[in-house]
Amino acid sequence: MAVGLNAPESLLAIDGIRIGTASAGIKRVGRRDLVVFSIEPGAECAGVFTRNAFCAAPVVVAREHLAQATPRLLVINSGNANAGTGKAGMQAAHEECVAAARLAGIAANQVLPFSTGVIGEPLPVDKITAALPAAIEALQADSWLEAANAIMTTDTVAKGVSRALNIAGHAVRVTGIAKGAGMIRPDMATMLAYIGTDANVSREVLQQILDDATRQSFNRITVDGDTSTNDACVLIATGKAGHARLEQATGESYQALRDAILEVSRFLAQAIIRDGEGATRFLTIEVGGGASEAECEQVAFTIAHSPLVKTALFAGDPNWGRILAAVGRTGLADLDIGAITIHLDDVCIVQHGGRAADYTEAQGQQVMAKPELTVRVELGRGRQRVQVWTCDLSYDYVRINAEYRT
Amino acid sequence: MAVGLNAPESLLAIDGIRIGTASAGIKRVGRRDLVVFSIEPGAECAGVFTRNAFCAAPVVVAREHLAQATPRLLVINSGNANAGTGKAGMQAAHEECVAAARLAGIAANQVLPFSTGVIGEPLPVDKITAALPAAIEALQADSWLEAANAIMTTDTVAKGVSRALNIAGHAVRVTGIAKGAGMIRPDMATMLAYIGTDANVSREVLQQILDDATRQSFNRITVDGDTSTNDACVLIATGKAGHARLEQATGESYQALRDAILEVSRFLAQAIIRDGEGATRFLTIEVGGGASEAECEQVAFTIAHSPLVKTALFAGDPNWGRILAAVGRTGLADLDIGAITIHLDDVCIVQHGGRAADYTEAQGQQVMAKPELTVRVELGRGRQRVQVWTCDLSYDYVRINAEYRT
Repeated sequence: MAVGLNAPESLLAIDGIRIGTASAGIKRVGRRDLVVFSIEPGAECAGVFTRNAFCAAPVVVAREHLAQATPRLLVINSGNANAGTGKAGMQAAHEECVAAARLAGIAANQVLPFSTGVIGEPLPVDKITAALPAAIEALQADSWLEAANAIMTTDTVAKGVSRALNIAGHAVRVTGIAKGAGMIRPDMATMLAYIGTDANVSREVLQQILDDATRQSFNRITVDGDTSTNDACVLIATGKAGHARLEQATGESYQALRDAILEVSRFLAQAIIRDGEGATRFLTIEVGGGASEAECEQVAFTIAHSPLVKTALFAGDPNWGRILAAVGRTGLADLDIGAITIHLDDVCIVQHGGRAADYTEAQGQQVMAKPELTVRVELGRGRQRVQVWTCDLSYDYVRINAEYRT
Repeated sequence: MAVGLNAPESLLAIDGIRIGTASAGIKRVGRRDLVVFSIEPGAECAGVFTRNAFCAAPVVVAREHLAQATPRLLVINSGNANAGTGKAGMQAAHEECVAAARLAGIAANQVLPFSTGVIGEPLPVDKITAALPAAIEALQADSWLEAANAIMTTDTVAKGVSRALNIAGHAVRVTGIAKGAGMIRPDMATMLAYIGTDANVSREVLQQILDDATRQSFNRITVDGDTSTNDACVLIATGKAGHARLEQATGESYQALRDAILEVSRFLAQAIIRDGEGATRFLTIEVGGGASEAECEQVAFTIAHSPLVKTALFAGDPNWGRILAAVGRTGLADLDIGAITIHLDDVCIVQHGGRAADYTEAQGQQVMAKPELTVRVELGRGRQRVQVWTCDLSYDYVRINAEYRT
């Protein structure tokens, strides 16, 4: 029941990337739960990973391998996060890489492992290595959508999007997929996202584009404030589009590619919120007039994490007092509450420290009846502005998370 | 359906304090929603108030009046918070004080106003002033329990407790009442709490006792992380017990009184959690081995605010991975995850960065089946220790907060 989101009908293939899926039977027999990305030599690859101190074994290994070599294979499983699994988990992640490398005739550190699913169960690495040959045999360029389906856990809809652009007369494509619906408060990247492009870009520029895009997309969403142990986002540029290599983070071509990748990242980040666990509404929180981006984010996330705002949103109740209380407890120094205005879409609800003079409950209810709406807070103390996206807190969020393991 | 909490059968009267209640008809006709405390001359009074920047008009006025004079009357209404009401709200709070002062023959700044209930509706000050004579006429020493009932909003159980102690051969009493069930993440004090004692204490010592007690009780609880606009706690010492005045924050008598007031504050703070909106379980989170109290609090509150931990608690699911993920995202610098242990009551669940070697799911489930349990995290990097109290996140929390205004 995602809010304003359907699975993509098709996704553009990226020259230089082939994808295969298989059933390893990790959680359920028969479900496709294993994905392999094969990347041709000559590609560049950038990654961002969770900052959770208890990060999962595959995150540790993927980060190490990415620092040592340019990846040729990504191996992704759903159904088990291989997190909180100590030394045995590290060994399992390594085993998986060794097995995949042997099949592909590459070095083990050219493989990046990723896992998503339940935390704290031993990874059934034997099932994965047994299914790897089938996944590699299935490799083809056109399987992005299949992969988007295979990496889902509590997601109800496969998430993916493509963009086409032009760099110096060459047609360039960007395609991305992502998964995630709960334990979503990324602190580097979302649960899992993979973006490919056939643009020709240096590793440094690629990493900069990914850092920029992540900051303004995956790091600006929250379902429940819980940062995952397994968050990872990988951006692959195969260079097959044929234009001259982008070596500088300036210029028209750089901007065009950066914008396309930011658009794809934002679409995927917002798709995760639209499919947030139990979500019935999609909320944009825009905070402007801040002295810094950081303080705008702080206010936006305080609103976004407030269970009282989120349950009012679920009820379609324009309970602006809860929004005001959330802004008030953010803890900004010298906050002048008289200078703050708060809007629900175009309706001004708070002004001069209280309810706006000409606000009527009927106006508020009209906005709150929509499945998608914006809360806009103007702090009146600077020029910075950020947007954050979140969803409501419904009975179904509680149901999904009370029943997840049973 | 509060967890392990019944309304008190009786509360000890405090010599020098009389209490009256009346029906002002603020939200529902006939319900007692107005309380007046009358304090005899010679008493000392200390207060702590919310740090929410959007604090309510009565909080602003009560803080001012307390700085100017020793209070003789407290006027408390439920059903309307007089918060987010701008200038009109300030005027209403002042009017209320002037009306009460006239009836009692005292100065307006000897009256402290308090309001609790829905945010952002104009305070019906005429209804309050009309009901004040009845409340004042009803003043008697024995009405603490009646007052505890009258200040409730979404509370299901009246909260109060008494202690008797001895200071220098004189019998001394402490009685406290509180209200609060949601929007609970006090940042100075809880929603509303009133504690009286007949001890003889200087204003400075009394404030120090209250600050100390608040820090270790009301400031260590959370239902939903939402700090109220109206939090306030008042401690009144009437001096009627007859012992020599306590002028120093040292010595046996000081310790005895401080301990009794801390006990009363903790009982009331925990009562608020036991009656937390939708609560079915009461959780103590103990974090030890920290380098500072602040970092222990940070870890404890990160766990306490995690919707994933709270829904697992509701389900009775020993999903230790979610606790571990919450500790991991706390953001402590140089956290050595290998040194951390986590216990559910006496069962070790996490050790050496993963599930404890001899842990079995059956052990975890046995602890999670209890209505009251403790999560204990040992950080292994210092000697500090704190306890924080919270409850689970259930369907009823969503229901109560989705339906609150409708």
